[in-house]
Amino acid sequence: MKQQDTKQTAKPAEKVTFNIDKEKNFSEWFTEIIRAAELADLRNNIKGFLVFQPWSVLCMEAMYDYYERDLQKRGHKPHWFPALVPEKNLKQEAEHVEGFVPEVFWVTETGNKEKLEEKYALRPTSETVFYPMLAIWIRSYKDLPYRTYQRAQVWRYETKATRPFLRSREFYWIETHNAFATKEDAYQNVLGDMETAERVLHGIFGVPFIFFQRPQWDKFAGADDTFAADTIMPDGKIIQQPSTHMLGHHFAKAFNEKFTDESGKEQLVYNTTCGPCISRMFASVIAFHGDNRGLRFPFEIAPVQIIIVPIAAHKNKDVLKTAEKLRDDLFDEGYRVEIDSSDKMPGEKFFFWEMKGVPIRLELGPKELESKELILYRRDTEKKTKIKISNLIDEIEKNSEELSANLKKQADEKFKNIIRDANDRKELEKIVNDRGFARANFCSIGLEGAKCAETIEKEFSATVRGKHVGKEEQPFGNKKCIICGKPAKAVVYIGKQY
Amino acid sequence: MKQQDTKQTAKPAEKVTFNIDKEKNFSEWFTEIIRAAELADLRNNIKGFLVFQPWSVLCMEAMYDYYERDLQKRGHKPHWFPALVPEKNLKQEAEHVEGFVPEVFWVTETGNKEKLEEKYALRPTSETVFYPMLAIWIRSYKDLPYRTYQRAQVWRYETKATRPFLRSREFYWIETHNAFATKEDAYQNVLGDMETAERVLHGIFGVPFIFFQRPQWDKFAGADDTFAADTIMPDGKIIQQPSTHMLGHHFAKAFNEKFTDESGKEQLVYNTTCGPCISRMFASVIAFHGDNRGLRFPFEIAPVQIIIVPIAAHKNKDVLKTAEKLRDDLFDEGYRVEIDSSDKMPGEKFFFWEMKGVPIRLELGPKELESKELILYRRDTEKKTKIKISNLIDEIEKNSEELSANLKKQADEKFKNIIRDANDRKELEKIVNDRGFARANFCSIGLEGAKCAETIEKEFSATVRGKHVGKEEQPFGNKKCIICGKPAKAVVYIGKQY
Repeated sequence: MKQQDTKQTAKPAEKVTFNIDKEKNFSEWFTEIIRAAELADLRNNIKGFLVFQPWSVLCMEAMYDYYERDLQKRGHKPHWFPALVPEKNLKQEAEHVEGFVPEVFWVTETGNKEKLEEKYALRPTSETVFYPMLAIWIRSYKDLPYRTYQRAQVWRYETKATRPFLRSREFYWIETHNAFATKEDAYQNVLGDMETAERVLHGIFGVPFIFFQRPQWDKFAGADDTFAADTIMPDGKIIQQPSTHMLGHHFAKAFNEKFTDESGKEQLVYNTTCGPCISRMFASVIAFHGDNRGLRFPFEIAPVQIIIVPIAAHKNKDVLKTAEKLRDDLFDEGYRVEIDSSDKMPGEKFFFWEMKGVPIRLELGPKELESKELILYRRDTEKKTKIKISNLIDEIEKNSEELSANLKKQADEKFKNIIRDANDRKELEKIVNDRGFARANFCSIGLEGAKCAETIEKEFSATVRGKHVGKEEQPFGNKKCIICGKPAKAVVYIGKQY
Repeated sequence: MKQQDTKQTAKPAEKVTFNIDKEKNFSEWFTEIIRAAELADLRNNIKGFLVFQPWSVLCMEAMYDYYERDLQKRGHKPHWFPALVPEKNLKQEAEHVEGFVPEVFWVTETGNKEKLEEKYALRPTSETVFYPMLAIWIRSYKDLPYRTYQRAQVWRYETKATRPFLRSREFYWIETHNAFATKEDAYQNVLGDMETAERVLHGIFGVPFIFFQRPQWDKFAGADDTFAADTIMPDGKIIQQPSTHMLGHHFAKAFNEKFTDESGKEQLVYNTTCGPCISRMFASVIAFHGDNRGLRFPFEIAPVQIIIVPIAAHKNKDVLKTAEKLRDDLFDEGYRVEIDSSDKMPGEKFFFWEMKGVPIRLELGPKELESKELILYRRDTEKKTKIKISNLIDEIEKNSEELSANLKKQADEKFKNIIRDANDRKELEKIVNDRGFARANFCSIGLEGAKCAETIEKEFSATVRGKHVGKEEQPFGNKKCIICGKPAKAVVYIGKQY
C-alpha cells in the first residue's frame, strides 16, 4: 500500500486524461473528444455554426488535397464560383427549387438597410450557377466531356438538431458539376465518382462503406438517379457519405446546355454532380479510428504525424538540440512534425498526444543520445520499439504504412457482418434495432414503393437505403415485399439513420 | 510576293493569337488577357461577382499554399470561422462598425420568407467573430503569443466600379488574428508580417513593393496603426497589396480579451491582424510579369509548369508514347505538367501556351526521339535549347530557377526609379501624373494633416500613402509642408491610386 502511494506521488501527472468507452457511450465519446482534442468550438453565438479549430482543419485540409488530386487526375478542373445564387437561378429547375428553397438563407439588404435589387440565396449547392456557365462554355462535342469542381462551403438552414461535423448550417465540401455527350458517358462518370470514393475515402482515409442506388422518393432534388455511400457509426446507426447524381436533362433543359454533335446537330448535354462532404467525412474518420483513449488518425491525414518528446532535456543540452535537428530533417522530408518542449512531465505529454491521435511519437533522452537511438511509439499498436537514429526515415516510412493499413483493417473488421437478411417484420425490427443493415425483399424502389417505405419509417424508425450498387440481387425466400406482401421487384437494405 | 503567300497558306495556324502593347494599353491588355487566357468569366448574372476559372484558380491555390506555409512556420494555426457575423458582434467596436457596416451584405430571411431571429452580416472581415473566441481560449501568459489565421472569402458591397481580381464584391484572402502580452511583441509580429510579404509576395511571386505606415485618417477601422504594401501597375498607378494592423486594445476592450500575467494580475492582450488578398496579388502577378504576347508566370505558381508538345506524332507512334512517359515521370517528381495532343498545328499550340504563360515547353518529334533529345523552350527568354532526355529533371530544375529569378529581376527593374522628390505643387503635379510616387515634405500624418491630404486629393486626384517603413526620413529642402507651408513633421509619399 505504502509503495503504491509513493509511486502515485512520484508521477502525479501520469494519469489517463481521456477514458470513455467509445462503443458503449459513443455519443458521450464524440462530444467529449471534440472538446478535449480541440476539434471544434461550439461556444460562438451563431446557431448551428461551428468554429473549426486547427486540429480538425489541418486534417481536413489534407483530406481536401487527396480528394481534389484524385478528381483532377480524372480531368476535373477547379473553379471558384460566387457564394450567392440569384433567386431567379434557383427557381429555374422545378424539382430543385422545391427541394432547396425551404432551407435557404436569403441575403436581402446591404449597408444601412438598403434593399438589394434582387434576393440572393447563400448557395445551398451550386447547380444553378454552374450550369448557366457551362451552357456558355460548351459549344461542340469537342468540348465534351466537361468536368468541373469547386471546394467550397455551403449553407443550409437546418431545422433538425445540428451535430458537430455531421449536420450543421454551414459545411465544407467539394461539388463537381459535369457535362457529357451521352447518357453512357454520364453514367461512366458516376461510376468514376464511386471509384474515387473507394480510392480516397476507403483507401486513404480508411473508412469503409457501401454504395446504394437510392429509391426514387429519396433522390437529390433535380436528379434522375442518386447513388450514395452509407457507412455506420460506432452506435450502429447509418450515416450517408459521398453521393453522386445522374441529373439527365433536368438542368440542361432549364439552362439551355447544348452542344453541336459530329453531324452538326444541336443536342442537350447530360449532367452529373457529386458532393463529397469533407467535414462529414472527418466525423467518420474520427468515429471509426478513435478508441477509448482518444483519437487515432491514418498517417497521411494526421494533423501532426510525428511528435518528438525530449526526455530529461535539462540533464543534457544536446537532447533538445538533437530533437530540433530531427524535427528539421523530418520537416524537410515533408512530414508534419512538432516537438513538445513544454515543462509538463513526459507521462503527461504522452497521454496528451495519444489522446490527440498523433500516429508516431519519438522519445529521445540522454540514454538514447549516447547509443544513437530513439524510442518509436505507435498509436495503433501502443508499442515502443528502439530504433537507430540513422534509420529514422526508413523506420517512419515503414511504420506509417503499417499503421495506416492497420487502422484500415480494424475499420473493415468493424464493418463486417453488418448485413443480415430479414424475412419478416419481426426479423426486420430486431435487425434494425441492433446495428447495420437489414436486407429484405421490397415491392419497388420506384415511386410506387414509397408507401411501404413510410410504413417502415413509422413502425421501425428506419429508412430504405436502396439497392446495393454492383450486385444484381434477386428477391429471395418467399420473394414477397416484406411490408405489403406483393411480389418483390427489388432487394433493398434498411437501417436506422443517424 | 508569291513566296510569302505560299508560306502563309502552308502555316495558316501560326499566327500571333495575342498581341497588345501592355505598357501602352494596359487597361485593354488586362481585360483581354482575362478573357483570352480564361482567368475569370464576368458573364454570370451576379453584379460585382466573378467566376474564377481553372487557369487562375490553380495559380491562386499555389499562392495560398506558399503564403499559408510561411504563416504556419511563424506559428499561425489555421481555423475555419463561420461566414456569418451576428449584427451585435459587428457593432461591438465603435470605429469598426462605422467603417464596415455601410458595405455589409445582410442575411435577414430563411426558407419561405421566415424572418431570422437576428440579422447576420456576410463577413466583410472577421475580427468580431475571432476575438470573442480568443477571449475564451486565452487564459494565461503561457498561452501567448496566440497566432491564428483562416483562408476565406469575404464579401463587401462595393459601390465603386468593380474590376476583376482588383476590386470585387467577393474576394479571396487570408486573415490573421493574433494576441500578444506586450505592445512590443505585437509590433514584432507586424514586422513579421512585412517579412512574410517580402519572402512570399516578392521572393516567390516576384512582385516588388514598398511598405508604408498609413496616415491616421487612412487606417483600418479599429486599428492604432496600419502598415500597407504599395506596388504599381503597368500604367504607373498605385495599388495596395497586403496590409497589417496594430489593433492595440480596441478589440481586447470590446470583447474582454484578458490574460493572467506572471504575477497573477489580469491584463488586456494586444491584437494584430493582417489581410493578404490572394485574388488581388494574382492581379499584380499577371500585371508585372505579363508581356505583349500574354501571360508569364513564375515557375512555382504557374497553373501548368511544363507543357509537352508532340511534333509529327502521326509519323512515329513512339513520339506520343515517349511524351506520355515524360509526363508521368515529371508528374511523379511533383511538377504540374500536361501534354497537348489535340489536332491543332504545332505553331498554334506554341502561341496558345505562350499566351497562357506556361514557363517551359518541351517539344518532341521523330528527330529528337532518334537522338534522345528534346527541345526546351523558355517563356521568359523565348529561346529554344536542345537537351538530353537523360538530363531532363536537372534541366527543368536549372531552367525553372533561372526563369523565376529572371522574371523577378525584370519586375524589380520596372519598380526602380519610381520615387522622385517633389519640392512644390508644380513638381508634385508633374510627378503624380507620370508614374510612381512623389516624395514630399508634409505637415503631419496625424489627424491634423487630413486637410492637406484632402487638398491633394481634390487638386491632383492623388493620395498620401504615408511614411516609408524602415526609413527614418527627415524633411528636406525648405522643410515645409508642400501644401500648407507649415513646418513639416513628416516625409510622405504621394501617388495616384488604382
